[in-house]
Amino acid sequence: MDYTKFFSADVPSFLRSPVREIFRKVDLNAICSFAGGYPAAVTFPMAEIPGLAAKVLEKYGTRALQYGATQGVPELREVLARRYGVPVSQVQITTSSQQGIDVCSRVFLDPGDIVLANNPVYLGALQSFKAYRAQVMGIRPYLDQVQGSFGPGPKFIYVIPDFNNPSGETMTLEERQEIVRLARELDCLIVEDSPYRELRYSGEPLPTIREMAPERTLHLGSFSKIFAPGFRLGWIIGPEPLLEQIYVCKQCLDLCPPVLDQYMACEFMASGMLDANLAKTIVEYRRRRDLMVSLLEKYMPEGVSWTYPEGGLFLWLTLPEGIDTVALYDRALSAGVAYVAGSFFYTDGSHRNTMRMNFSFIDEAKMEPGIRLLASLVREAVCYYNLLVRKMNEEHIGKN
Amino acid sequence: MDYTKFFSADVPSFLRSPVREIFRKVDLNAICSFAGGYPAAVTFPMAEIPGLAAKVLEKYGTRALQYGATQGVPELREVLARRYGVPVSQVQITTSSQQGIDVCSRVFLDPGDIVLANNPVYLGALQSFKAYRAQVMGIRPYLDQVQGSFGPGPKFIYVIPDFNNPSGETMTLEERQEIVRLARELDCLIVEDSPYRELRYSGEPLPTIREMAPERTLHLGSFSKIFAPGFRLGWIIGPEPLLEQIYVCKQCLDLCPPVLDQYMACEFMASGMLDANLAKTIVEYRRRRDLMVSLLEKYMPEGVSWTYPEGGLFLWLTLPEGIDTVALYDRALSAGVAYVAGSFFYTDGSHRNTMRMNFSFIDEAKMEPGIRLLASLVREAVCYYNLLVRKMNEEHIGKN
Repeated sequence: MDYTKFFSADVPSFLRSPVREIFRKVDLNAICSFAGGYPAAVTFPMAEIPGLAAKVLEKYGTRALQYGATQGVPELREVLARRYGVPVSQVQITTSSQQGIDVCSRVFLDPGDIVLANNPVYLGALQSFKAYRAQVMGIRPYLDQVQGSFGPGPKFIYVIPDFNNPSGETMTLEERQEIVRLARELDCLIVEDSPYRELRYSGEPLPTIREMAPERTLHLGSFSKIFAPGFRLGWIIGPEPLLEQIYVCKQCLDLCPPVLDQYMACEFMASGMLDANLAKTIVEYRRRRDLMVSLLEKYMPEGVSWTYPEGGLFLWLTLPEGIDTVALYDRALSAGVAYVAGSFFYTDGSHRNTMRMNFSFIDEAKMEPGIRLLASLVREAVCYYNLLVRKMNEEHIGKN
Repeated sequence: MDYTKFFSADVPSFLRSPVREIFRKVDLNAICSFAGGYPAAVTFPMAEIPGLAAKVLEKYGTRALQYGATQGVPELREVLARRYGVPVSQVQITTSSQQGIDVCSRVFLDPGDIVLANNPVYLGALQSFKAYRAQVMGIRPYLDQVQGSFGPGPKFIYVIPDFNNPSGETMTLEERQEIVRLARELDCLIVEDSPYRELRYSGEPLPTIREMAPERTLHLGSFSKIFAPGFRLGWIIGPEPLLEQIYVCKQCLDLCPPVLDQYMACEFMASGMLDANLAKTIVEYRRRRDLMVSLLEKYMPEGVSWTYPEGGLFLWLTLPEGIDTVALYDRALSAGVAYVAGSFFYTDGSHRNTMRMNFSFIDEAKMEPGIRLLASLVREAVCYYNLLVRKMNEEHIGKN
């Protein structure tokens, strides 16, 4: 039976996540994987969960297992509202912050609409925008080439200001001000994706973009990195008229977020367990970041550079021009090391000499053999590339 | 700030659920509510949950709190595949069966596409189809008026064959065969929504439509009525080429379903707890259905009729022609009884003399006062309507 005729016009724009495709085929525990964006399992409050479940059922009774409000359970919205200093009416709970991205796409984007984003862009966001057939453009190319030409402006600017996935970079105060200025000038919204903000290992926190432009910013938060990703819980803070449409849309998506999970997250936060766990998580990840940076310094050949992330889960590696991390990937995987090729995060598939490296998930014991292996593959690729270039030059000279 | 210009072209087609709007404003515990589609809290396995959580963490370790596969955790897919006699590759876990409806809409529907459904239609499905700007048509009107005319046929037929929400009716074998025959003739898919199938109180089970036409049916299941709705878990059983696109779409929606919840559902099923709890639930609901039917017989005035559901959570009341349940609603709510007006479930807003009555959620002690109150309101409305008709007739006679 041929099913293709049944699919909607959006389906050809659905992209598979290369990261998730890797996970489908490879046992991550058998190799040295820097590929995923997974938190470290040691940060999960394993011991606390059964007690949390029992406490929540005692405190909230059968409400904890019943359908809940589409906006999220009021208790969790209140705890978040207090933590971030906003009214409860400006908080919508989402079933993962990926759902936050998806619901913003659904409520704001039509085919052909423009979304501005700083390259490289988080894959899950790129997938979602493209699945609604939006055009995702870099901010600079838009300003240089498109702005002022006929046609509507962008619907929103998408940014991860704190510890960007995939680059690990943090926007300066000036860069944040520039985004706000630009959004006001273009009269568009800002989707501020902020799953890592609480994971800062060095440097000083800067204001969120939402704090700088609350009237036009949807701020997406996540419990995945401060509680556990298995709960699939996130939130959106934003202006009420926007949340009102997101609320109506969310009725169709899944009626309400998981209720027992919401109460457990609520109890985890309200009791202070979240902050205690977060403090330990930060110590853990800071050590891993520092270890990865020192290993890169020790093993990587000249010509390789990387970002120094002040927080989050990733750093970004740039190899010498001409080295293709997509081509290198199969070789790396069979040798026993995984990463994500950087070009996947570029709207135009460029920057084939870059890669995203995750330092949160891998066993620390595997980090040194993993980086050493990767460095040897890079060194080999550089040698091979240089040989190739020399050969081509010789042939060129021979011909002349 | 005017936000309307930011919204996508789909947004004006977003409908608010009148049921969820009622819940937003009214404390259901303070009145006699037959409005919701909530399961009875007494059926929730409250005592088992903390033990389940502990067991799952012990058995699956940190995997239970980590990101999971987009298709759902393999263990839960296997338990479902065994229960329903299908290969694991034909099972996709969804974050609620509402998400199942939404993802089918997203993958199959473009604006203007036709979905066929038997009136009255489940509101959440109607909301979802309309939010993608599809045309939802009754099967009969389509065959009589549209079929054969220029333009593409329907994308799918949507049905709840077992204990339909809202009507409580069950499709006969012949009706199921007719749906399959029609889908083959029109060469369209079938979305078989089946959240209540396991809740049968009398009569014999009939084959599912999926069993009769596996090549073109997406069968949607739900844990909400057999475990607890707070978990937001459902599943889709269907042909692999369709599930493959649903899988890619689901990456954008929320990456994966809630993981701890999936393992708890898996353990609940695999240990036999689900079947034991289901047996008790069926006894409970059968008693409530019988009680509601006997109270309707006792209190409702002549001219009122209702369906006798063999399972599920609802029955469907038809009042004498001319009585408007939408108009009656505010009066009923202030008197202390709630229902859902039947016309909300009709694609054309017709059948204003009908209502959906839920018998699963309300305290049994409230059922008699609730039905008695509702019956007195109906009696009053009938009297008033008859008076009005007589007066109009007299005026008409006076004029002649």
